[in-house]
Amino acid sequence: MDDSPIKFELIHIDRYTGARRGRIVTKHGTIETPVFMPVGTNATVKTLTNSLLNDINTEIILANAFHLYLRPGLEVLEHFQGLHNFMNWEKPILTDSGGFQVFSLPNTRLTDEKVIFKSPLDGSQIELTPEKSLDIQKVIGSDIAMVLDVCINSLSGYDAVKDSVQKTFNWALRSKRYHNSNGQALFGIVQGGLFEDLRNLSLSQITSLDFDGYALGGLAVGEKYQDSEKILKAFGNKLPENKPRYIMGIGSPTMMFLSVENGLDMFDCVLPTRMGRHGTALTWKGKLNLKSSEVKFDQKPIDEKCDCYTCKNHSRGYIHHLFKKDEVLGKILLSIHNLRFNISLVEKMREAIENDEFKFFKDEFFSSSTYSLTN
Amino acid sequence: MDDSPIKFELIHIDRYTGARRGRIVTKHGTIETPVFMPVGTNATVKTLTNSLLNDINTEIILANAFHLYLRPGLEVLEHFQGLHNFMNWEKPILTDSGGFQVFSLPNTRLTDEKVIFKSPLDGSQIELTPEKSLDIQKVIGSDIAMVLDVCINSLSGYDAVKDSVQKTFNWALRSKRYHNSNGQALFGIVQGGLFEDLRNLSLSQITSLDFDGYALGGLAVGEKYQDSEKILKAFGNKLPENKPRYIMGIGSPTMMFLSVENGLDMFDCVLPTRMGRHGTALTWKGKLNLKSSEVKFDQKPIDEKCDCYTCKNHSRGYIHHLFKKDEVLGKILLSIHNLRFNISLVEKMREAIENDEFKFFKDEFFSSSTYSLTN
Ligand SMILES: [Zn+2]
Ligand SMILES: [Zn+2]
Repeated sequence: MDDSPIKFELIHIDRYTGARRGRIVTKHGTIETPVFMPVGTNATVKTLTNSLLNDINTEIILANAFHLYLRPGLEVLEHFQGLHNFMNWEKPILTDSGGFQVFSLPNTRLTDEKVIFKSPLDGSQIELTPEKSLDIQKVIGSDIAMVLDVCINSLSGYDAVKDSVQKTFNWALRSKRYHNSNGQALFGIVQGGLFEDLRNLSLSQITSLDFDGYALGGLAVGEKYQDSEKILKAFGNKLPENKPRYIMGIGSPTMMFLSVENGLDMFDCVLPTRMGRHGTALTWKGKLNLKSSEVKFDQKPIDEKCDCYTCKNHSRGYIHHLFKKDEVLGKILLSIHNLRFNISLVEKMREAIENDEFKFFKDEFFSSSTYSLTN
Repeated sequence: MDDSPIKFELIHIDRYTGARRGRIVTKHGTIETPVFMPVGTNATVKTLTNSLLNDINTEIILANAFHLYLRPGLEVLEHFQGLHNFMNWEKPILTDSGGFQVFSLPNTRLTDEKVIFKSPLDGSQIELTPEKSLDIQKVIGSDIAMVLDVCINSLSGYDAVKDSVQKTFNWALRSKRYHNSNGQALFGIVQGGLFEDLRNLSLSQITSLDFDGYALGGLAVGEKYQDSEKILKAFGNKLPENKPRYIMGIGSPTMMFLSVENGLDMFDCVLPTRMGRHGTALTWKGKLNLKSSEVKFDQKPIDEKCDCYTCKNHSRGYIHHLFKKDEVLGKILLSIHNLRFNISLVEKMREAIENDEFKFFKDEFFSSSTYSLTN
């Protein structure tokens, strides 16, 4: 079956690590990988216009099926013929399945067939099945949809994780059968918590199904760095080589380096925008607290190496003032900068991979900054 | 003395009304009049980047001396060599004197020499004099500074208003003596409340001093439309013809038409941005509530006649959704639109004046919209 709605081209693998340079072609445009995907939870990447997102070279955004299902709701999204049209975003969109949010709610119940939760809007009981998740994502019209998987606490015991792996596989089978691609790619998700044998089991189960891409799920949910590292090292490069590889919820420089080094291609995370809204900037030298009075008189840009609108136009001292006055513009300016930081980080990773210099680039990054290599 | 730091050119007076088409040249650029000035209270026009302000053809912004004096404070503004530099705004800035805010505080005391108030930051006692206000505005480095006047309740009795007129004149004299222009224009303010004889007195007093422009103060502070109309009709065109004429705190279409018709050139108001942040759009047909479920499925732009980023890119239904989710982008998009509405309104007024069609344009505006002619 080579009628995949997306095409993945593996351009180069770094000679000394597992880092990959790739390209995903979708009907809404081409995505160079490794890629960082800003999160647009409610049909908006918080505080930013599409124009600003384009300026910082955003190639794809992630949208949350769960949130969009609740608001604006499927009726509105159908009326607007999908999310691209609704929010006037012309580039690719990836949707999650809604599972992560549903499993995070209190009082969610899981059966073999479905997950049942209470609507945060009105308390009504709602069922989510693999099929319903795909229906929702189809109405949203994302370029890449995710299967509904079973997300459980990362500290769960062996039997609980084993059960979630089996259910995840059953749901993946149902999803694969149900999905009518028609231009929409579908990614499978490998679960298995921190147990290597269960990860192996899930990997073989999920990759036995011909998905358009594969994700590592159940990481970046509060576990220790060493645990994520163990799983990424063991399984990153076991994911099929000819398909995009996605690790969900990753967005810190440390975790992005770890993931790319182990063959992952795609990441998303609210971290840069959330940190930005709270006054912290990511810079090539480390984190910078713009609320600190140390920058009150600072005329320098946040980061002299950054090419974003914020750094080209505004000083640390001005942004400090905006945060002191709780002005929205402060949040906007830091969100721009932090997203641009993450995006330019993957851009530089791409270049390093092409030149077989990924390891060198990584060493340089950590030796010239205060980011920790291990958390 | 023709070394005025600004030059005012009176281009044309409408044949059938007092509406004037003019031009103010400052060292930060040229302002066409009539002009609407967005308000940048805390060194930011709320929610908007400078880039967006430029896109909607903002020609000058207003900044508040009182707020900037408190935060970031003069030490910071001095360090950054003024507000233009601090906020990276390259076009003209007008500052108010701080009087309006100080007189609005509880526990403010007025003497012949000064006004004494409690700092909203720390409760400390602060004195504001005409000279100190000018010092503050000098540090801010505005292109146009305003004299400190005595602002009293618009419903005050005759004797209180008479007293405020006299003090305002004394303070204007002190300001005129003290002001060292050096590139900064200084405008006088005519007071007198709703008493015609006191307005006449204030007018003759203030215009006896050679200011670079003149403002009508003490209007748009809660009085009835008919009262503002009476004063504007009687005094708008009595202000010196060869200088810019400014009416403070005006920003509704109704009041802008009334003011322009009576020979005023400049206005400022937080109304368009404040209304925008609260979900109401100004359109050529009237006000539109974007929070109303009536627009939930509406694919039309806010205003089909509008050329702003919001109207070119987004639907009413999308903006409705953003407000339902309390997303900042909703506030941004409506602030852009509402400011653009006010700015394009004065742009069209200019054209109408040049063609001696101001009255026709006004009639057309009110007959094709739901705005009231009288409030
Ligand atoms: Zn930057
Ligand atoms: Zn508009």
